[in-house]
Amino acid sequence: MNDTSNLRAIGIDFGATSVKIGALPDILKDGGEEPVVLETLSYSSVNDLIDAIAESVAGIGKRHGNMIAVGCGVPGLVDFDRGFVHTLTNVPGWQDIALRDILERETGLPVFIDNDANCMAYAEWRFGAALGLSNVVALTLGTGIGGGMIIDGKLYRGSSFAAGEIGQMSIDHKGGPGPYGLPGILEGHIGNRQISELAATRLHDQPMPAGGWTPRSVAEMAVAGNPQACQIWLDVAECLGSLLASIAWLINPDAFVIGGGVANAADLLFDPLEKKIRASVSSVISDDLRILPAKFGNEAGIVGSAAQALDAVLERR
Amino acid sequence: MNDTSNLRAIGIDFGATSVKIGALPDILKDGGEEPVVLETLSYSSVNDLIDAIAESVAGIGKRHGNMIAVGCGVPGLVDFDRGFVHTLTNVPGWQDIALRDILERETGLPVFIDNDANCMAYAEWRFGAALGLSNVVALTLGTGIGGGMIIDGKLYRGSSFAAGEIGQMSIDHKGGPGPYGLPGILEGHIGNRQISELAATRLHDQPMPAGGWTPRSVAEMAVAGNPQACQIWLDVAECLGSLLASIAWLINPDAFVIGGGVANAADLLFDPLEKKIRASVSSVISDDLRILPAKFGNEAGIVGSAAQALDAVLERR
Repeated sequence: MNDTSNLRAIGIDFGATSVKIGALPDILKDGGEEPVVLETLSYSSVNDLIDAIAESVAGIGKRHGNMIAVGCGVPGLVDFDRGFVHTLTNVPGWQDIALRDILERETGLPVFIDNDANCMAYAEWRFGAALGLSNVVALTLGTGIGGGMIIDGKLYRGSSFAAGEIGQMSIDHKGGPGPYGLPGILEGHIGNRQISELAATRLHDQPMPAGGWTPRSVAEMAVAGNPQACQIWLDVAECLGSLLASIAWLINPDAFVIGGGVANAADLLFDPLEKKIRASVSSVISDDLRILPAKFGNEAGIVGSAAQALDAVLERR
Repeated sequence: MNDTSNLRAIGIDFGATSVKIGALPDILKDGGEEPVVLETLSYSSVNDLIDAIAESVAGIGKRHGNMIAVGCGVPGLVDFDRGFVHTLTNVPGWQDIALRDILERETGLPVFIDNDANCMAYAEWRFGAALGLSNVVALTLGTGIGGGMIIDGKLYRGSSFAAGEIGQMSIDHKGGPGPYGLPGILEGHIGNRQISELAATRLHDQPMPAGGWTPRSVAEMAVAGNPQACQIWLDVAECLGSLLASIAWLINPDAFVIGGGVANAADLLFDPLEKKIRASVSSVISDDLRILPAKFGNEAGIVGSAAQALDAVLERR
C-alpha cells in the first residue's frame, strides 16, 4: 500500500451564522492554521456565499497541498448519495440545492455533503471521545439538538439519510406538538431557548445578566450555588436522561458522546445525567456503557466533514 | 460454489409456556411437518427440559437429514457470542445458563442462541414482510413488547446483545417507574395486561367475556362497533405511534414490521397507527416508510432462529 499519511481533505462547517473552513489533519495539530470564517448572512445570495466558500477552499488547498477531497457538514436534512441539501434549519434560501455538484465544479475535488451532527459523530469516533468504539450515539445540545450514530463501526445515515434526529424524539406523548406534529419532543424541553425561558421564570428574583438568560449564565449561577439554577440543570438532566435511557434500550451502545453549548455545563449536567441513565436500564446495558463529553467543540464540523471525505476517497482507491 | 439448497437447520422457539421445535426450510412449505411442542412447565428441572429438547432435535434431524445447525430463540437477555442466557422473563430457574455449550454437546451440531425478538426480526427480513430491506425495526406485541433491528442489511444486536428492547422505552418521562426504573415505559401502557385492565374499567357496563377481557375480546368488541372498545385501540395506536415516530426520527428505517397477539387487531390498530406515525415525522422520513404486519405468527421463532443458524454456518464455509 502507498503511504497516504500526507494526503489532506478540507472540511466545511456550514452554520446558520458562519461558515468555517479548515484542513485535516492540520486542524488537529496544536498551533495549526486557524479556520477561515465567513459570515453566512453577509452574502446577498446563495451563489455569492458558495463562490466565497470555493475561493477559500482554493486558498487553503494552495497553502497546504495534497488535497484530495472536500467534506461539508450542514445544519439540516440532506440526500447524502446525491449531495443534495433538502432544507437548512435557520438559513433562508437554502432549499433543494445540489450543493455537491456546485462545489465539485468550483473546487475540482470530490465533495461529500452530510448532516452536521453526523459529522460531529464521525469526528468523535475517528479522533475524539469515542475513538475506535463500535456503537456510538453522539449528540449536540444547542439551539437545536442533533445526533449521529456509529453502528457496527460505520456511520449510520438511515434509509433516506435522516437518521439521528434525537431532538425530534418525544419524551412525553401527551405534550404539545413539535414542528413535525410529534408531541413532547426533546428539543421543546431542553433547547437553549427553553432553558433561557425556564431561567427567566424561575430566576426572576435574580438580576438578569447582560444579554439575558442563556444556558451559560444559568450554569454560572448554578456553580455559584443558586438552588433554582441547580434545579434547572437537574430538570434538563432528567429529560435528557429519560430519552438517552430509552435510546440505550434500543441501541445498547458502547457510549453516548455529548457536545454543544449546553454540554459546557459539564458536571452540573453530566453527573445527574449519568445517574439517571444508569438507574433506568438493565446492568447488561449499563455495565459497559460510557457517557462521555465530546472532545471537539467548534472544530467538530470541520474535522468530521473532512475526515468523512478523506476516508471515502481513500476507500475508493 | 456448492449447492447448499438441500441443507437444513433446526429452530427452537423457547417460550414461557412451550418450546416449539421445527426444521428450516421445511416449515416454510405448505403441509410441512408440524413443529414438535414441549410444555415448558411439565419438566421438573432445566436439565430435564434440555434433555427433552435435545431428543426432539435428534428425532427431527433423523427424519429430515442434512442438518448443519441449530438455532434457539429465547425470551430474555442473552450473550450471543458466548451462547449464554443471562435471564429468561417468566421462566423460573433460567439464570446464567450456558445453553449453547449444553445443546452443542447434546446435539453434536453448532448452536446459536439469540433473543426471540431478534429471531422474529430475522425471519421477517429473510422470508417475510421485510424481505430484502436494508433497515428494519420489527416488534412483537404481547404480554411483553420485544423488538429486533436490521441495520444496513444485517441483524443488529448491540454492544452487549441487548439492543431492540422497545417495550422498555419510555413514552412519558413523568410516568410511573418500570421494572428497571425508567418512568412511563411502553410495555406499561400497551402490554396485554394493560389492555385488559383498560377494558375492565372502560367496558364495565358490558358482559365480561368468558375468560375475562383480553386484547382479542376487546378487538371483537371494537369490530362489533362498541365505541369504548374502539377508543382503547385508538389509545394503543397513539402510545405505540408516538414511540415508533420517535424511533423513525432516530433510525429512519425502510419499514416497521409488527407482529404478536395485539397485532391481530389488524386494521383497528394499523390504520390509526400509520396515520399517527406519518403525522409525526418529516416527509423525508415518511415518504418511503412502510408499516407492515408480520408475515409469520407462531412460527416466527422457529424460522428466525433456524435461518440465523443456517446463514451463520454457511457464511463460515
